[in-house]
Amino acid sequence: MTTLRVMLAQTTTRVGDLPGNAATLAAAVAAAERVCADVLVTPEMAVTGYPVEDLLFEAELVGAAMDAVTDVAATTGRTVALLGSPWHVGRLPDAGGAGALGWSADALERPLRNVAALAHGGRVVAAHAKSLLPTYSVFDDARHFAPGARRQSVYTVRTPDGPVTFGVLICEDVWDPALAVEAAAAGAQVLLVPNASPYHVGKPALRLAQVAAAARAAGVPVAYCNTVGGQDEVVFDGGSFVVDADGRLVARARSFVADELVVDVPVAPRRDADRAVEPGRARAGAAGPAWGTDRKADPRTGPPDVVDLGVTHASRAPLAPPVVTPALDVDAEVYAAIVTGFGDYCRRVGLPRVVLGLSGGIDSALAAVVAVDALGADAVWGIGMPGPYSSAGSVDDARALAANLGIRFDVVPIADAYAERRGALDGLLTDAAAAGRSPSGTVDPVAWENLQARLRGTTLMTVANATAALVCTTGNRSESAVGYFTLYGDSCGTAPNPLGDLLKTTVVRRDGSVLPGVYGLAEWRNAQASAAGQVPPIPLATLTKPASAELAPDQQDTDSLPPYPVLDRLLLAFLEEHASAQELARTLVDEDGWDVGTAVATVNRVLTLVDRSEFKRRQAPVRIKVSRLAFGRDRRMPMANHWSHARAVVPEREPLTA
Amino acid sequence: MTTLRVMLAQTTTRVGDLPGNAATLAAAVAAAERVCADVLVTPEMAVTGYPVEDLLFEAELVGAAMDAVTDVAATTGRTVALLGSPWHVGRLPDAGGAGALGWSADALERPLRNVAALAHGGRVVAAHAKSLLPTYSVFDDARHFAPGARRQSVYTVRTPDGPVTFGVLICEDVWDPALAVEAAAAGAQVLLVPNASPYHVGKPALRLAQVAAAARAAGVPVAYCNTVGGQDEVVFDGGSFVVDADGRLVARARSFVADELVVDVPVAPRRDADRAVEPGRARAGAAGPAWGTDRKADPRTGPPDVVDLGVTHASRAPLAPPVVTPALDVDAEVYAAIVTGFGDYCRRVGLPRVVLGLSGGIDSALAAVVAVDALGADAVWGIGMPGPYSSAGSVDDARALAANLGIRFDVVPIADAYAERRGALDGLLTDAAAAGRSPSGTVDPVAWENLQARLRGTTLMTVANATAALVCTTGNRSESAVGYFTLYGDSCGTAPNPLGDLLKTTVVRRDGSVLPGVYGLAEWRNAQASAAGQVPPIPLATLTKPASAELAPDQQDTDSLPPYPVLDRLLLAFLEEHASAQELARTLVDEDGWDVGTAVATVNRVLTLVDRSEFKRRQAPVRIKVSRLAFGRDRRMPMANHWSHARAVVPEREPLTA
Repeated sequence: MTTLRVMLAQTTTRVGDLPGNAATLAAAVAAAERVCADVLVTPEMAVTGYPVEDLLFEAELVGAAMDAVTDVAATTGRTVALLGSPWHVGRLPDAGGAGALGWSADALERPLRNVAALAHGGRVVAAHAKSLLPTYSVFDDARHFAPGARRQSVYTVRTPDGPVTFGVLICEDVWDPALAVEAAAAGAQVLLVPNASPYHVGKPALRLAQVAAAARAAGVPVAYCNTVGGQDEVVFDGGSFVVDADGRLVARARSFVADELVVDVPVAPRRDADRAVEPGRARAGAAGPAWGTDRKADPRTGPPDVVDLGVTHASRAPLAPPVVTPALDVDAEVYAAIVTGFGDYCRRVGLPRVVLGLSGGIDSALAAVVAVDALGADAVWGIGMPGPYSSAGSVDDARALAANLGIRFDVVPIADAYAERRGALDGLLTDAAAAGRSPSGTVDPVAWENLQARLRGTTLMTVANATAALVCTTGNRSESAVGYFTLYGDSCGTAPNPLGDLLKTTVVRRDGSVLPGVYGLAEWRNAQASAAGQVPPIPLATLTKPASAELAPDQQDTDSLPPYPVLDRLLLAFLEEHASAQELARTLVDEDGWDVGTAVATVNRVLTLVDRSEFKRRQAPVRIKVSRLAFGRDRRMPMANHWSHARAVVPEREPLTA
Repeated sequence: MTTLRVMLAQTTTRVGDLPGNAATLAAAVAAAERVCADVLVTPEMAVTGYPVEDLLFEAELVGAAMDAVTDVAATTGRTVALLGSPWHVGRLPDAGGAGALGWSADALERPLRNVAALAHGGRVVAAHAKSLLPTYSVFDDARHFAPGARRQSVYTVRTPDGPVTFGVLICEDVWDPALAVEAAAAGAQVLLVPNASPYHVGKPALRLAQVAAAARAAGVPVAYCNTVGGQDEVVFDGGSFVVDADGRLVARARSFVADELVVDVPVAPRRDADRAVEPGRARAGAAGPAWGTDRKADPRTGPPDVVDLGVTHASRAPLAPPVVTPALDVDAEVYAAIVTGFGDYCRRVGLPRVVLGLSGGIDSALAAVVAVDALGADAVWGIGMPGPYSSAGSVDDARALAANLGIRFDVVPIADAYAERRGALDGLLTDAAAAGRSPSGTVDPVAWENLQARLRGTTLMTVANATAALVCTTGNRSESAVGYFTLYGDSCGTAPNPLGDLLKTTVVRRDGSVLPGVYGLAEWRNAQASAAGQVPPIPLATLTKPASAELAPDQQDTDSLPPYPVLDRLLLAFLEEHASAQELARTLVDEDGWDVGTAVATVNRVLTLVDRSEFKRRQAPVRIKVSRLAFGRDRRMPMANHWSHARAVVPEREPLTA
């Protein structure tokens, strides 16, 4: 059977580091030549990194990227290399894929395409443009690019086994199976998919299912190459793979590390492109909707381009059977994503050292463990900052954690600072409030709680500024959702928040899938240590004591919030499934046996807190996205907003338990 | 001559306030009926406010919006009302405009259209969808909507003067003149344009020129209705207007306040739609590019829809000649935008009271004046917070400002707090740095400067939390650009930053246009007061003393930064024109006579500061956008980023002055 030898170079790229990324690509080209690969697939936008965001508006960057691709192309020989880059329409090669002008979503013309440049024999011979531009979740592709023609060009290489025609689908293009079908109809015997596909929990399985479905729909194998590493709030998880025409997994690279796969992909004989078009489907080039016909016409008519790229290698040695790396379990997957995203950010900004406040609580403990796993114990500095309402155990538990981790730990109390600022302000504020400056006529005591948190944040920032380190904040997603944190206080952080997209507790969704929470990951990490014969890092007391901000006497989180297992289920359904207040209240009544009044009040209170804390989240540090819908660029909400989600009322039917 | 009586209701809408917005629209309907308008035009998305952002993913909000439109439609009689709303394709009426499915930019189907619902005789009779979805600058329309068919439906009403056919172009649709031409070709004798078009300096003139060009291209008059008011970082400036078929201004509403225009727009006799298509232009319904033909087909074929809406009013009294409000000068325009945006935010979040630090400097002085103009003197509280390096004049100048404004002023020194925290940390940090915890082996003294700023920020936040007020930060755009501020210190702010999009000094662009800076607006505001016989609010000493952060002995801004006039010119060219480092250095050499070495070093230093402070800006409060390209959603940059803009080298040719 004819095979196409494909190398998938699952590389780490750094945004804006064009020389470094080009060197990585050149090394991949050399490796591909060594194994006599017919085709080398590298990640989407590998030469610039992804997402490059508004740097794409800068002609210098785009020019430098195209130059870097040209330089890497100069190192190609017999292997055809797919090199991801932005490309200016003014410099497109004659052949293949990106020639059409495309359209924009709006009145602004965009001269850029997101392309896989096809390099062979020392030069760029074609540039295949991405057709579908993700403009949802964290993505803004339509802001920067115009799409390539939807009509799919395909490319023929003459391998030692004979000619093989392949199609190219860039990332989002494989999420609409119709494009895979069209490429196969145009003659592709195999599809190559360069990606920069970010992680969220369950994404590796989702991605495999999606690509397998595309392979089955098109009837051809698919080779999927992802990038790896953390970039601001997103993490690319790698896990590149190959599926056969039946969608079966035949090779998979590791996750969260750079890796490569070399696979001889068996391909079926080329189909007749004309006959392959399904009855009733529109043909490429046929009449489309009455859209943009005058100003954005596709200059290409007639049958799809089939670009002959020529001869690859003359002969080659057989390969060992491909590796199929096992999938990670959900805890390992989420934890690895957080460690990768956190560590890569700190390294990429050149400050791989962090300071964090250790309160003796579960959040700061897990954050410290993540920081140590990402950066090493020498790079992590814990500070205990007991205040007037800190429990006796808080410093002891923090010290025990630090000892387990082997990190430096110091105690810098805030009690004197608190007494000084409170003394400076108490009389003034009481008088001013009484004189009508406060609508209530009194001083809101939350101000004094926040003062403690802000003095801690100020202390940590001073330590970090003095020693050229980053501050690691430790708030979790549950707190972030309901605004249970102090802006400029415990939310201070110049590193990404490692826990910011983790609910406090583990939630099992209706479909059986699991979203690990802070407690679950902490227990999992301790168990990993035990299994490896190491001391579990997180002290038992930290895992078992009730959650408390310790900003007022005998304060517990449950004074202000529902129990976390309840809160977390409500938040997940609200944030990720857009469940209405009504639906949430009904769940509490029907499934948990709550009385109607309590359910309605609880739901309305939680949703009000979420709505009213958008202004805080807007100024919080980015968090490492691990959920399907994280705060940040993934959830863009107005701050000044009169829409309230708190609309739960008494359910229409009686509760089942009544 | 036949006329169409058009009422433009330039209303204030509040995001998410559906009952309030619906009441505003119902009042506009009643007013339009009273003046026997044939057509009422209201702003884009008037029922929800704009931008609604990801609230659009919530079925409840969309359903409530459509219900609210239906309720307003029930109040319509003979006037045809255009009501802006999101609309679900599942509830589209049979007639007109939005029936086509449209496509998405990516693999995700979007069931929403951004429509002008056409209501008449008590019900919604058609829904005209926006075709072009702005996905640049602050806009994310393609994230939320699929476009309507580009083929333009047109609408006929039978007025007392006879039948008139109009087209509808929603906001962005008028920025591509081809759409206006197509609507005219389809029979439109006049175009109605509902908008939510945000302000930036010069935008009113730009908008008028653009719409006048569309009118001339299409050969028909255009009536343009904008919304008004501040929403988070953007401000809608109103200034609705009508131009005739030659693009001449015939009516204009006021800026930055709710207003209305009623105009009898003269229309030329209806052209034959078929003959009106320009030779060589594609006809609506003709073959388009090979895009999405299979999965996103336009179900409508044949000639454009002409929807007959029936009879409007039987007769009516003549109108007075239309008002043409004069344009504001640039200082008044920018100042009004800031006051509107700042005040509306504070009111919309329900906390129309602010606390701000008064340092005696120009920035905090102008911010205080803005706050007073927006919210009133009783709602503004100034706090002087002298520290160890504050000048003697700082409290005096602040006190004088407060007296001029009639606002409360208190002094809360930070010296003791600073001594306490420095005492708690100095030894620890010195020892730790010497022990290798700091890469330099020493404590970075900037940590102590930042500590002062953070204790001030903490003090202000405590005052604000205690009295249910917002904190107003006062940093300007120049400082924000180069990171010359302390994160969690002087950048603390829960109100929008009123000065955050103002450079320190006024810059005149090459085209002669002016971008007012902090000093310029301060002087303009003082002059306005003088002209009105009032005390100029900002003390002379504040206007004339050298800029200083006063965080170290004898510190001046020019110790760290180039003089502001130089800095500001560099920043403006870099940020708004994407000028390269090379171009910036050449300007300093050729036009200002700088020596090459100093020019290169200065440019590289400034651009390095801009690149390295992205992480600070990401956590800063939103600023009121008044420039063409503001920080925030208008400039989306990676934080972990290896691309450096500091690439100035010695220019290739000798400087003119050598």
